[in-house]
Amino acid sequence: MSDTKNISGNGKHKDSPSGDGGIDRRLIKVSAPATVANLVCGFDILGMALNDPQDVMEVRLLDEPVIRIKHADDYDLPVEPEKNVAGAALIALQEACQKKIGFDVVINKCIKPGSGLGSSAASSAGAVVAANHLLGNIFSKEDLVRFAMNGEKVASGVKHADNLAPCIFGGIILIRAILPLDIIPLSAPPLFVTVVHPQIEVKTSDARQILRKEVQLKSAIMQWGNIAGLVTGFLKNDYDLIGRSLEDVIIEPVRSILIPGFDEVKMNSKEAGALGGGISGSGPSIFMLSKEEQTARKVEAIMKNVFQKIGVEFKTYVTSINQTGVKIVDEK
Amino acid sequence: MSDTKNISGNGKHKDSPSGDGGIDRRLIKVSAPATVANLVCGFDILGMALNDPQDVMEVRLLDEPVIRIKHADDYDLPVEPEKNVAGAALIALQEACQKKIGFDVVINKCIKPGSGLGSSAASSAGAVVAANHLLGNIFSKEDLVRFAMNGEKVASGVKHADNLAPCIFGGIILIRAILPLDIIPLSAPPLFVTVVHPQIEVKTSDARQILRKEVQLKSAIMQWGNIAGLVTGFLKNDYDLIGRSLEDVIIEPVRSILIPGFDEVKMNSKEAGALGGGISGSGPSIFMLSKEEQTARKVEAIMKNVFQKIGVEFKTYVTSINQTGVKIVDEK
Repeated sequence: MSDTKNISGNGKHKDSPSGDGGIDRRLIKVSAPATVANLVCGFDILGMALNDPQDVMEVRLLDEPVIRIKHADDYDLPVEPEKNVAGAALIALQEACQKKIGFDVVINKCIKPGSGLGSSAASSAGAVVAANHLLGNIFSKEDLVRFAMNGEKVASGVKHADNLAPCIFGGIILIRAILPLDIIPLSAPPLFVTVVHPQIEVKTSDARQILRKEVQLKSAIMQWGNIAGLVTGFLKNDYDLIGRSLEDVIIEPVRSILIPGFDEVKMNSKEAGALGGGISGSGPSIFMLSKEEQTARKVEAIMKNVFQKIGVEFKTYVTSINQTGVKIVDEK
Repeated sequence: MSDTKNISGNGKHKDSPSGDGGIDRRLIKVSAPATVANLVCGFDILGMALNDPQDVMEVRLLDEPVIRIKHADDYDLPVEPEKNVAGAALIALQEACQKKIGFDVVINKCIKPGSGLGSSAASSAGAVVAANHLLGNIFSKEDLVRFAMNGEKVASGVKHADNLAPCIFGGIILIRAILPLDIIPLSAPPLFVTVVHPQIEVKTSDARQILRKEVQLKSAIMQWGNIAGLVTGFLKNDYDLIGRSLEDVIIEPVRSILIPGFDEVKMNSKEAGALGGGISGSGPSIFMLSKEEQTARKVEAIMKNVFQKIGVEFKTYVTSINQTGVKIVDEK
């Protein structure tokens, strides 16, 4: 390791806590939250961060232009920087930085890859937020989303931001547009989120491929009515309106076919008092929103029951909206 | 006229100001505002009421089941109740009322039919609000929109509510869904509205027919990003976001072809500082939103200039959002 060598000496990193001309030698530990993209009717434009699960990553700044990635988990993900989502994100940041810097990264994933809970986004987002912190926060959060989108491209072939933006900003985020990127944080009333992750594989690229390239105008009108309703429900703290608007007439009817138990989970959860919910991202995880924690726990029992009956392994979470996004949890 | 006979006597109209068992014998005069449907990206789900122009109508309750319509203007509109938009709306109200009642209606239209400024909605809405007032406000505003939608069906063949809801409620309205009807009033910051009505004919039915029945999913995603952005901009009083979101990639590119001068008006208005705008309803009127009255006046000058150059007759309005909807202006 050569992470103690001072490469800059030009004072540009004067904000760095190391105070030695730029290179912050500390090992920084960050947590990066799981995220639910789409939020039912907001395909590609809405996302929400969760308090549980979260990835943990350790990042150290280097004064040589290398990116070294290690995994402290058993997911056997690639470590070559350009094939690794965190690596691809850091390469973009490195290029924007125009300095001879590098990173040592250790990733401990608690968000299972392929869960539909923004696992790749957590890695990319965690890496760039940590890197930016070590560089003295020279980049804006929007910049970090832009860098991290290169990680999403490695993961799914598409530069989307509906997991990344909530992962970095926290809360519920509207991504009005990608080009140019327009990120709008939305306030929302307290919500409990129940998630079930059935241990089946749905590849994001497959889930994208089965979608029709054209949609009926009348369906699109229903969809944008619901999106406008959902956003209004969030901003006005109107739980009923949130519930009425959680309807997807375009994506869910196609994608839910890939998820056994989906219809039963959704119907029974709503009967138990959940506001509504649907597929998390491209699945296979399913999420439901509830006003009360008690309802969210009932929904968890329903989810467990459905997947036990089907005989599919699963994991559940009862959690709430994460308001901070990627967080520095330790520095040494 | 037999409007002095008491038909009910069953006390159900006890709220009626006449106090004689039900029939309110007064002649009531209402004003019904023009409306801008769609608001660029919110096709079929958003609408806004304007302070100018407004229709004026006089309505009297009768104790016989007839609807008599007269016009105090020169538009030569049908007077047979079932072919007249106000008549069709009143027939629906009459049926829901299940009483032997009728109405004398005199309509003085200041909103030119076929302008794209909700002329038919103003007639339908004005009639049912006036009738409801005379009946002691026994129906909710949602009920009135439902009755008035029968008028819209007469006018354009489609039961839509994006002019009616703002005409009756005032302000900016989201119509999340038609079946069942879900009307959501949205707050918004003060806005000035400049409107130009070029005196050319664009039939709503034709403007609907030229639209493709299918749209690209990627265009639909851009559209619902903009709708979510626009609604958020209104609710958060964010003028910049309103401006960025006033973009329609689906309807405007097709319909604007029917309106000479459209592109020039839009481009020059935005260059002069307008937040944005587009086709009002199905056209041919064009509206632009501005933060400042001064900008709205500049936009008016631009509109005048463009249509004078083209040699098309036109009328302009510089106005603001009407917050009250249909209003009782006189009772005798």
